[in-house]
Amino acid sequence: MPRIKCIVSYDGSNYMGFQVQDSLPTIELVLTEAISKLTGENNKIYGSGRTDKGVHAKGQVIHFDTKLNIPPHGWIRGINSYLPQDIRINEVFIVDENFHARFSAIKKEYRYLIKTSDYDVFSRNYYAFYNNLDIELMKKALSKLEGKHNFEGFCSATVDKRKDFNKTIYKARLNVLDDVLEFIFEGDGFLKYQIRRMMGLIIDIGMHKDTLDKIDLVFETRDPGLSHKKAMACGLYLYKVTY
Amino acid sequence: MPRIKCIVSYDGSNYMGFQVQDSLPTIELVLTEAISKLTGENNKIYGSGRTDKGVHAKGQVIHFDTKLNIPPHGWIRGINSYLPQDIRINEVFIVDENFHARFSAIKKEYRYLIKTSDYDVFSRNYYAFYNNLDIELMKKALSKLEGKHNFEGFCSATVDKRKDFNKTIYKARLNVLDDVLEFIFEGDGFLKYQIRRMMGLIIDIGMHKDTLDKIDLVFETRDPGLSHKKAMACGLYLYKVTY
Repeated sequence: MPRIKCIVSYDGSNYMGFQVQDSLPTIELVLTEAISKLTGENNKIYGSGRTDKGVHAKGQVIHFDTKLNIPPHGWIRGINSYLPQDIRINEVFIVDENFHARFSAIKKEYRYLIKTSDYDVFSRNYYAFYNNLDIELMKKALSKLEGKHNFEGFCSATVDKRKDFNKTIYKARLNVLDDVLEFIFEGDGFLKYQIRRMMGLIIDIGMHKDTLDKIDLVFETRDPGLSHKKAMACGLYLYKVTY
Repeated sequence: MPRIKCIVSYDGSNYMGFQVQDSLPTIELVLTEAISKLTGENNKIYGSGRTDKGVHAKGQVIHFDTKLNIPPHGWIRGINSYLPQDIRINEVFIVDENFHARFSAIKKEYRYLIKTSDYDVFSRNYYAFYNNLDIELMKKALSKLEGKHNFEGFCSATVDKRKDFNKTIYKARLNVLDDVLEFIFEGDGFLKYQIRRMMGLIIDIGMHKDTLDKIDLVFETRDPGLSHKKAMACGLYLYKVTY
């Protein structure tokens, strides 16, 4: 039975996040319906991970099993023909049964985009807006976050405490491109709200409303109450999943 | 009684166009409601002109009369506080009673944006998508459109035939910026659907589906049936109105 791996991009603005929640508009629900319409099967889809309400993806990865033998370009055209304009299948690979979108992932890349120019209506769903951020200080904050740490203090307080909170951030960088600040995070995995909570603190540090020491304090105390300011969802993109 | 001139930008994606149509979501209705909420008056607003469903504005101009004496920055903050995130007042000027957003306009600039890269979900509402367009041929088409002409053949067929169809296009240019084609049109005024019909033909010429002669033919025959392919609304921006 063929297993199909899809690279998916979506504009999360009009969705309640990736994961199915009854009949609410979610990415998973819309993908499941589109794929099942094409195949006539009841395909269960598996994503590399969830994204929150309003969060976007350039390179989300999903897989599903099917009895159909369709070549990759046929899957792309076929599924896209049942999808709305804000969700697209970009690439398809026929993979073996050992591949799993979630469990086989070895690296994830997220990006967070900030515009430093004035608010504009065309960018409102795709960037956070901040002025006068201290770039050098934010770069220092990013280098403190790199490496292996217990990130419980940057994780949603509602997550089961038996979870393994030890994660490694391979790379945390900031590129300045005209009026856009592009934060890049690569790691072996990220906890619920982790990037938005890290970005919330990085932005506060960039505005001199908080200090670099706070990062050490969050690591030491593992207290999610210290990183409660989540940066806006609309600036966040699941950029790439590596297997 | 102060007359207030506002420069307005909007993302037209979620609106049925500028002009009020009963209680349908239109830019004019939302602006009227926001301004009247702020003032407690029943302000009638006047726009420089209509934009179609899905068409955007970077620099639409409106005016209204009020009994209130509020400084410009107060108007900006006050009206924006009642507007949704996809409509913004960018600038406000207190003007004299001779100013009229529509009748005082002497020049209008529209831009039409095409992306030549692959379709992407984040650009879908803000660009048309076309590949392999013949840039040099489209530049020739643009120069044929410049100058004073009778544009009846590029106007919606439903427009009253007693209308003056003589208009002047001061400038019709194409800038190529990486994967974006930016068409710029400056003129003393544009007819209903004129730019989208001109762009529809320019795109067909760029794809070698039609020839430059067609422009002459539309001018000669004044037959709107020859320019019936309207380019997509989402690529069009009312950029600037000059007084």
